[in-house]
Order: sequence, then C-alpha cells, then structure tokens
Amino acid sequence: MENILVTGFDPFGGQALNPALELVRRLQGITVDGHRVETREIPTVFDKSIERLLAAVSEIKPKLVICVGQAGGRPDITIERIAININDARIADNDGQQPIDTPVIPGGPAAYWSTLPIKAMVKEMNDHGIPASVSHTAGTFVCNHLFYGLMHHLATTDNAAVRGGFIHIPFLPEQAVQHKGQPSMSLEAIVKGLEAGIGAAIRYQEDIVVSTGQIC
Amino acid sequence: MENILVTGFDPFGGQALNPALELVRRLQGITVDGHRVETREIPTVFDKSIERLLAAVSEIKPKLVICVGQAGGRPDITIERIAININDARIADNDGQQPIDTPVIPGGPAAYWSTLPIKAMVKEMNDHGIPASVSHTAGTFVCNHLFYGLMHHLATTDNAAVRGGFIHIPFLPEQAVQHKGQPSMSLEAIVKGLEAGIGAAIRYQEDIVVSTGQIC
Amino acid sequence: MENILVTGFDPFGGQALNPALELVRRLQGITVDGHRVETREIPTVFDKSIERLLAAVSEIKPKLVICVGQAGGRPDITIERIAININDARIADNDGQQPIDTPVIPGGPAAYWSTLPIKAMVKEMNDHGIPASVSHTAGTFVCNHLFYGLMHHLATTDNAAVRGGFIHIPFLPEQAVQHKGQPSMSLEAIVKGLEAGIGAAIRYQEDIVVSTGQIC
Amino acid sequence: MENILVTGFDPFGGQALNPALELVRRLQGITVDGHRVETREIPTVFDKSIERLLAAVSEIKPKLVICVGQAGGRPDITIERIAININDARIADNDGQQPIDTPVIPGGPAAYWSTLPIKAMVKEMNDHGIPASVSHTAGTFVCNHLFYGLMHHLATTDNAAVRGGFIHIPFLPEQAVQHKGQPSMSLEAIVKGLEAGIGAAIRYQEDIVVSTGQIC
Repeated sequence: MENILVTGFDPFGGQALNPALELVRRLQGITVDGHRVETREIPTVFDKSIERLLAAVSEIKPKLVICVGQAGGRPDITIERIAININDARIADNDGQQPIDTPVIPGGPAAYWSTLPIKAMVKEMNDHGIPASVSHTAGTFVCNHLFYGLMHHLATTDNAAVRGGFIHIPFLPEQAVQHKGQPSMSLEAIVKGLEAGIGAAIRYQEDIVVSTGQIC
Repeated sequence: MENILVTGFDPFGGQALNPALELVRRLQGITVDGHRVETREIPTVFDKSIERLLAAVSEIKPKLVICVGQAGGRPDITIERIAININDARIADNDGQQPIDTPVIPGGPAAYWSTLPIKAMVKEMNDHGIPASVSHTAGTFVCNHLFYGLMHHLATTDNAAVRGGFIHIPFLPEQAVQHKGQPSMSLEAIVKGLEAGIGAAIRYQEDIVVSTGQIC
Repeated sequence: MENILVTGFDPFGGQALNPALELVRRLQGITVDGHRVETREIPTVFDKSIERLLAAVSEIKPKLVICVGQAGGRPDITIERIAININDARIADNDGQQPIDTPVIPGGPAAYWSTLPIKAMVKEMNDHGIPASVSHTAGTFVCNHLFYGLMHHLATTDNAAVRGGFIHIPFLPEQAVQHKGQPSMSLEAIVKGLEAGIGAAIRYQEDIVVSTGQIC
Repeated sequence: MENILVTGFDPFGGQALNPALELVRRLQGITVDGHRVETREIPTVFDKSIERLLAAVSEIKPKLVICVGQAGGRPDITIERIAININDARIADNDGQQPIDTPVIPGGPAAYWSTLPIKAMVKEMNDHGIPASVSHTAGTFVCNHLFYGLMHHLATTDNAAVRGGFIHIPFLPEQAVQHKGQPSMSLEAIVKGLEAGIGAAIRYQEDIVVSTGQIC
C-alpha cells in the first residue's frame, strides 16, 4: 500500500495547542482510497522544520505530501496555491529565530506552485459540507517556509513523481474562546475536510478547471 | 420534572435549512440538570411567530424560555441582552411581509432586558470550549420581534416567575460552503454550547458580574 | 439664530486623539441651514460626561443635540438608534472608573430611542458621498452612557421640544496607522458627513420610511 | 528631468469609477523629488493591458513604473510584494474574457518580486499618516496580470535598471456608499499616500529591513 505523508506543526505564538497537530493525531494510520496516511509532527522552527520534513519524506517514501498549518483568523480550510522564497517573521519561531527578508533557499526561484489538484480538493471538501477555498498566500512565517522547502526539494531531486502542497486550517473552537471574535472550525469538520481533500488528491492527477480566483 | 422551552425558526432568506431548527431537533426531549427540554418550531413570520410561541408557553408551562435564531456572519454563539420595540425588515419574512419602522407591540416600552443570566451562560459555554459572547443587538427582523414579544408577554402577564431570552447561532458549515468567507460552527458544537447555556440558566437565578461590555 | 449643540469626547483608551474632538473643532461656530453650531468637549468619564453635557444644554438652549464619539473598527459613520440603561465597561474611563452592569440612571427605562431623523440623516450623508448607516448598539461604555443620559434628560424635563441623538465616527487615517487592518475615514469626509446630517436633522421633523434594518 | 510612470485602470465589475483612474488624473504632471510623474489609463482587459503598459514604458522611458489598481474591501493602501504567473478570473474583464488557470506569460517563471522598496514605501506612507501595508497577493485578475507582465518585461529586456511594482488602493467613500460595510479611503488621502510612496521609491535603491510579515 502506498503512503501519504501528512504533517502538522507544534503549537507556537503562545497557543496551548495547534489544530494541525490535533489533526495529524487523528489521521495517523488511517486508510484513504487504498493509501495509508502516515503523519509527522514538525517543529515551528525555521530550517529545522524543513530538515525534519525531508527526513520523513526520505523514510516514508510517500506518493503525496501534505503539510498542514494553523491560520488563525481564517474561517475555512484554505488550500495554498503558491509558496514564495522569503522568510519575514513578525514573531519569533519556537527557537527564538526571527528572520526578516531572507530567502528560504538562497538562489531558489521566487516561487513554486503546489502540485496538488487544489481546486478538485476544494470542491471535494465543499461537496462534503466543509467550507474550503483556494488561498494565494501562505504568509511569510514557518508555514510558507516549510511549503517552499518541500516544493524545492520535490522539484530538484528525483522525487519529481511525488506531489506536494500545503493546507491551512482555522482555529479550533477552544482557541477561539481565547480569541474573541475569531472564527473557528471543529476538529471533526477539519478531519472530514482533510479526508475528502486527500481522497481528491489521490484521484486527480490533473486539476479541474473552475474559477476560484480572486479580484485581489 | 419542570420544563425548559427552546424554540427554533424555520429556514428563511433563501436558505435550505436553519441551524436553529436543526438544533431544536437535537435538543427535543433531553434532560438538563433535572429539567426536560421541550422544543417547538417557529415560523419566520412577523406576529405569527409570537402567537405560536405564546401558545407553546401556555401549553408547556416552562420555567425558562430560550428562543434561538440564525445569525449568518457571526463567528460565535451570541446571547442577546436586549429586545427592542421595532420591526425594520430588510427582506420579506416567510409570509411576504416586510414591515418598516413599526412597533412589535404598539404602546410597549422601547426595550426589554433578557431575564436570562447572560454572562453566566457565556462563561459556561466558554468553559466547555464553545466560543460565545454577549450581544447588544438582536437586529430588527423576526428574531428581535419574537424576543420582544416573549419578554413583553412575560412582563405583563402572571408569568413573572418565568425567565426568558434569545440566543443567536452561526451558520452551519454546509451553509458557509454557499456563503464563501463566512464563519460557521458545527451542529455538535452548537448543541454542546446550548446544553451548557441551559444548565447555567437553570442554576443561576442571579447573573455573575464580569465585564463583557463593548466600547461601541 | 437657533443653536445646534454638537459634542465630542476627549481621547481615551490610550489614543493620542479622538476624531470626535477633532470634528467639533472644525464644526465650532459654523452655520448650517440658518442654525449656528455650538460645540463642547466632553470628558470620557462616567457621570461627569452627562453633567457636562446637561450644563451645556442649559447654557446653549439648543434646538438639537448631537453627541459624537469614536467607534474604532467601524468603517462608516453610524447614526445610533437606541440608548440602553446599562454601564458595562471593558476598560477604565479617563477617571479610572470601570462600572459593570450598573444602570446609567437608576429606575430609568431600559432604553430610549434617538429623536433624530436617523434614516433621513443616513440618506443625506450617502447622497453627499459619505458612507453612513443606522446602528442598533452604541455599546456599553461612555458613549452609550452619555446618549442615555441625554435622552433621559430630554424626556423627563421641559425640553421635550429639543431633539437629540448620538453619532459614532470611525478612526482617523493616522489612528489606523497604529491599528493595522482597521478601517478609517478622513476628517474632511467626517466633517462633510456631519454637516449633511445636521442639515437633515434640521429639515426633517419626521423621519423618512426606508428600511435600513438588519437581520441580526 | 527623469520620468516616473504611474498607471490606473478604467472602471470594471459594474463600478461607475475606479479610484486608480481618479488617482492618476490627480498625479499627472506633478513633480516628486525632482522627477516628473507621467500617467496612463490602462484598460481592465487581459493582454491588452500589458500591451498598453509596455507601449507607455517604451514611449516615456521611465525610471520607475508603478501600476495602481482598486482593491475593494481592503482598508488601507497595499504595496504588492509578488506577481504570479496565473490568470484565474472570477468575473469577465472589460472585453468579456474570463481566462481560468492560464499563464500570464507561457513559459515564464512562477513569480516575480516587486523591485520597489516596498517596506520603505509603507513606512513613508505611514509616517505621513496614511494607512498602508505590504500585501503578498495581488489576486489573479487583471491587476496581478499587469503586474506580472510588467515585471517579466523589465526582467527580460534591457530595462534592467528600471524598477517597477504594483499598489492596490481601497474603494473611494462614494463607492462604499454603494457597498455597505466596506472600508474606504478619500482620494486626498490616497494621493498623499502615493506621493509619499513615490518619493520613497525614488530615494531608496535598497529597501529597509523591518518585519511586515504575516503569519499566514
């Protein structure tokens, strides 16, 4: 049985938990469309996050890699379209690093596209009743950093057949209790959304053509 | 065993469902702190909604009355503090009526306070991990209309011992799929929040004193 | 020439300025539709704010009283519809007082309606190209407190012919520089909006009937 | 005297005006830090917009090119950091074209960075009291399209010494009257912001290093 690797970050920014970590605990070992989901916890730390991810890719030899991070303030699951070659940290990471305007990979291209079928994944999540949309920015913190590191690795090594991407998920309800006025999504809905999205990623080699574009 | 009456509106404004109606189907017949929850569906119609509610109050003889409505766009459960004596409908109700600047009850006072322990209810919901807050406006559509009609009835009849109020709940996730960018809350979280809130309403005759105020 | 009294609060909550105070400095002494605008600065302090306002009303004998306050986070000018009899302070006022769930006026009614033609004022502002809307909550801090104090005074003394109300205005652009992501409005637009609104308040004894209602 | 080229789009999406077009009418011919500002109107049309821009670059031989577009819903001026090689139109352009998931330039790289000193420009606008921030997505409509077309041209021709980028501006107040609840900015504030930003772009060959990053 082929493997799907799904990663989640540990808590950061003063949060007691990270919904991405709660998510991967729920996805560990499940089967989706005949594929086994293997998960890993990734530290919210520049560089070390990429090292940990690439070690897992090397070990697990997945067919698909989906990294997941928390997007506090977003109301729905967002499938990221593009990773950019910049670190610009508004807060320190979990090792106290706060790089400003440095490249993720010196000499790397400005950006990499996700190689997941992002629109098919959004549609599948929506068809299962889970709010989801395409996002055109994964920020400039460790989430985008890991996403760029992954795509650079897949593009520049003999992993060209492996597809990868990044998904942001909202606060959990218990986090929104502490962040009054912020939207949230239950872990059950997030799990259901990810299962639907993973299934679509397995089944669609080519993405579907529907507009999910944004005026700006 | 004493009764708690919880009501939910039927769908309106082109929606296929109303989370308040889904909620009451889940709460019907359950026991909370030794009280039985009895529920009723209320039409999203001016005047008829109040008639239906008062008939249910007369029949069920509840100790507490909690009316629930949908607040599309709000991210958390909101316990309404005050009902105002105005109908100002931006859209037509389910009978095609669209009153503008008419009183709910001609000659009634400008407003009535909820007689629920609103802050204890918010705290109890939050303690159970459910985002909730106090709201100072229930709008000017059928939700506020029913809320005002209830409080006027309780204040002007021999139901003075019966306490009542209104709670707004967010879109369900499947509704937010249709309303891109809007926050939502799962039915499970809403049910959990309501159970916690009903429990607090039963246990607290007097509200707790904590600030949940808003600058404006 | 008859007088219009317009008041603005001094800065609070750590702000260096209050747009309402900047506004009244610009409105002082101008003539609108044959009426003279007289302005006063009001301290952002519970009780003292009402005393200062009522002293000004007694001195100036205005035909209209319009109190103005800052609503940080709102994108447009909001004409408040109703004042409620509650103080619930999330932060301390400028004298360090932070009342929670006390009445503005013990024994007063739950609420008073604005006696300004709020919808005609919104329309006139809009017709002059200024974003404006009706609001159904002035919060529970000193703004609502002053508004309630004013309306109680006008309703219970021989000032019945004097009409009054409250208007909230957004942050100024220079404040939004400090509050990233918050909307703002230029002082010129606010002044233009208030002049239009004051004119409508003078000309309309009865409000116009158009829906500006909110579902919730 | 060297030239600065500033462009603005014509109205689209059913709008009666485009703040970017109003802006360039105000900037035409002014002098900023010893440079003359030359402006052009650009059609909100895929491909044709780039043709028109490149013709103007060829004619005017500017030292700096700043394209400006409307970002309805954003509260502040946003300096775009990156242009991406995708067209994904949610609505039709002014010629009825609605490309979905086509490249701006077939075979072009995934993205180009702005070559403007974006953070120095934000700081200068803020120092002049105008809300501004860095944005990491210019959308996927004609704004991003033109931005990408510009940067590709500058990167692949002998215009390497010419710097360029894109700025999004909010709705004008009169537009927000039609879009209830949306933030706006006065034309005077936008003009002031752009003058400050152009000045910074002239004076800073290298950008300043301050974090304006986003978690996501």
